[in-house]
Amino acid sequence: MTQPFYQNFKLGILGGGQLGRMLIQAGINYNINFSILDPDPQAPCHQLAEFTCGKLTDFDTVMAFGQSCDLITIEIENVNTAALKELVKQGKKVFPQPELIELIQDKRTQKQFYQDRKIPTADFILTANKEEVQQNKSFLPAVNKLGREGYDGRGVQVLKEEKDIAKAFDAPGVLEKLVDFRKEISVLVARNEKGDVSFFPPVEMVLHPEANLVEYLFSPAQISNGLYWEAQRIASRVIEEMQLVGLLAVEMFVTKDGKILVNEVAPRPHNSGHQTIEANTTSQYEQHLRAILNLPLGNTKEIMPSAMVNLLGEEGFTGLAKYNGIEQVIALAGVHVHLYGKKITKPFRKMGHVTIVDADVESLKKKARFVKDTLKVIA
Amino acid sequence: MTQPFYQNFKLGILGGGQLGRMLIQAGINYNINFSILDPDPQAPCHQLAEFTCGKLTDFDTVMAFGQSCDLITIEIENVNTAALKELVKQGKKVFPQPELIELIQDKRTQKQFYQDRKIPTADFILTANKEEVQQNKSFLPAVNKLGREGYDGRGVQVLKEEKDIAKAFDAPGVLEKLVDFRKEISVLVARNEKGDVSFFPPVEMVLHPEANLVEYLFSPAQISNGLYWEAQRIASRVIEEMQLVGLLAVEMFVTKDGKILVNEVAPRPHNSGHQTIEANTTSQYEQHLRAILNLPLGNTKEIMPSAMVNLLGEEGFTGLAKYNGIEQVIALAGVHVHLYGKKITKPFRKMGHVTIVDADVESLKKKARFVKDTLKVIA
Repeated sequence: MTQPFYQNFKLGILGGGQLGRMLIQAGINYNINFSILDPDPQAPCHQLAEFTCGKLTDFDTVMAFGQSCDLITIEIENVNTAALKELVKQGKKVFPQPELIELIQDKRTQKQFYQDRKIPTADFILTANKEEVQQNKSFLPAVNKLGREGYDGRGVQVLKEEKDIAKAFDAPGVLEKLVDFRKEISVLVARNEKGDVSFFPPVEMVLHPEANLVEYLFSPAQISNGLYWEAQRIASRVIEEMQLVGLLAVEMFVTKDGKILVNEVAPRPHNSGHQTIEANTTSQYEQHLRAILNLPLGNTKEIMPSAMVNLLGEEGFTGLAKYNGIEQVIALAGVHVHLYGKKITKPFRKMGHVTIVDADVESLKKKARFVKDTLKVIA
Repeated sequence: MTQPFYQNFKLGILGGGQLGRMLIQAGINYNINFSILDPDPQAPCHQLAEFTCGKLTDFDTVMAFGQSCDLITIEIENVNTAALKELVKQGKKVFPQPELIELIQDKRTQKQFYQDRKIPTADFILTANKEEVQQNKSFLPAVNKLGREGYDGRGVQVLKEEKDIAKAFDAPGVLEKLVDFRKEISVLVARNEKGDVSFFPPVEMVLHPEANLVEYLFSPAQISNGLYWEAQRIASRVIEEMQLVGLLAVEMFVTKDGKILVNEVAPRPHNSGHQTIEANTTSQYEQHLRAILNLPLGNTKEIMPSAMVNLLGEEGFTGLAKYNGIEQVIALAGVHVHLYGKKITKPFRKMGHVTIVDADVESLKKKARFVKDTLKVIA
């Protein structure tokens, strides 16, 4: 593909949420014309690009949309991959490749992939329904994951003991040994068509105990050099084995005995990479664009330590969003608020994020706590 | 004004060029709905926001546009200020204030303002036509500026000796003593309605000898501490005397004998502040938005030394733009390309800019030269 930068070139994104929105923000610098498909007419991207309202899982909708574009990418995995495969047959570029979206879409095939390629991951059993979970009660405590359509903390639950099996998913899923982990880290890795590979430094995530969503993130992860390189080596193996073109977020556990296990991956910009907009030389959004456009990958160095706080809708509030405390927060140096353009807040809805950049790690943590305690999304 | 962030709030921008485009990029983070007025249906902003095609200098067009917005700002000075004044009377917020746009629009009133307020500026004579220039030939060598509608190097010329008077502007203008300057610097200063004032560190500009456009820019300016503070003090005096709300770019000369003289100002984001996107804690675009929305002003510290190169259309090429060398340039660490979404290039048209960020000043200068020599906008 030549780079006309980008006279009549049209990049289609399946999904018009916040990740698409930040891809558009990055793509403006390269004259990229975006076209967005999303079922929500008020999706975060709807005013920023050519916008089509339609179902991402519908074959005909995705076909028609894809045929109007020169290159198609995703910002959510739950899309009609049969249509994407057909588009590839018809000569369209689709990155990440439809087969890989399909592989990753289903946590069962994803886990099987790691096992087959000897990529370290927690032990698991595939279960077809609740009965099979029951049959494997000796495997508890375990994490029960729905094979398909889990997203943003939905479709994942911990089964600690036998009585929890009552709530087990009665659909194809995975039962995964509960990992006694010390830290949860993530490495973003990108690969272009030429085969160049580039990593971002590992970051460290702190999950919300109930919502199973990233609540805080710190970059770089406070881990030993050995673990740093091991995490990058594993992320590299995953993207190379997949031969994926685009950005891949590889979420990993660091176990209490110092091993790294792959938890899961996402073939797109990811919640664990928002802070790269301000804190790294190249952002994850620009890197994804560079990868799928077969451009040279960007330098990923951290400029300064950073923290990222997800802005989730407060519990107890549903309605037109208000952002209490935003003025106090943006009065602090190095605090960058990103709102996602969603009119309606509801409990735990991702309404935005805040990146804090500070050369001093103690001051960084203090500011991150202040942001968390001060900025509240209510109705 | 309360900050609903920004459910139904609409910010109108008069002008839909690259400055508007980068304001939109920054405003996405605050959920700002933009509405753009520009005479060119293909203006750089046309696909990124609600867009109205119309003349900025037409009273009725500006009135109708302004009435559909909650707050109106500009990204170019050449607008109908009578309409803006009428909008203020009707209760709309307009920042910068229409009276100040008018003052700045005309280089004659602008110079008079500096003289009246004892703000240091080069000596000048107001001239009504070519004949009056002729009468003041003893004032040469001088810079002859058109009072109104000069922009991007147009409407400014040097008259070195008597024979140059043949090309003098035959319209109201200024004849300004040619300053034997050592450096040309710029300070961006912002002020919100509360009266908070914040500066960016002075930057240093190198102009293209023919086109009279900024060709290179380095941040921070290599000047003594004394000059650094003097430049900030003068920029502060200008914005305080004007009581301007918004961002003001104050361009200044450092004379060979170490004095600072104000050259001219622009009441909006400015070419001398593009590099703040990557190189400062807060960008000039976000700062302008903070100022006009009466939010706390952002910290302006430089994160790293930076250079900015304007991408001007190469001489000899007019037509659909191509960006030769872009891949070599973005392969370098810390090189950030910003294209402006203009389909057609022509000689000296501003097609984009490149910011280079590097902790090492020698490496920075080397990269800036490489970018300048490598990346060419042709047709």
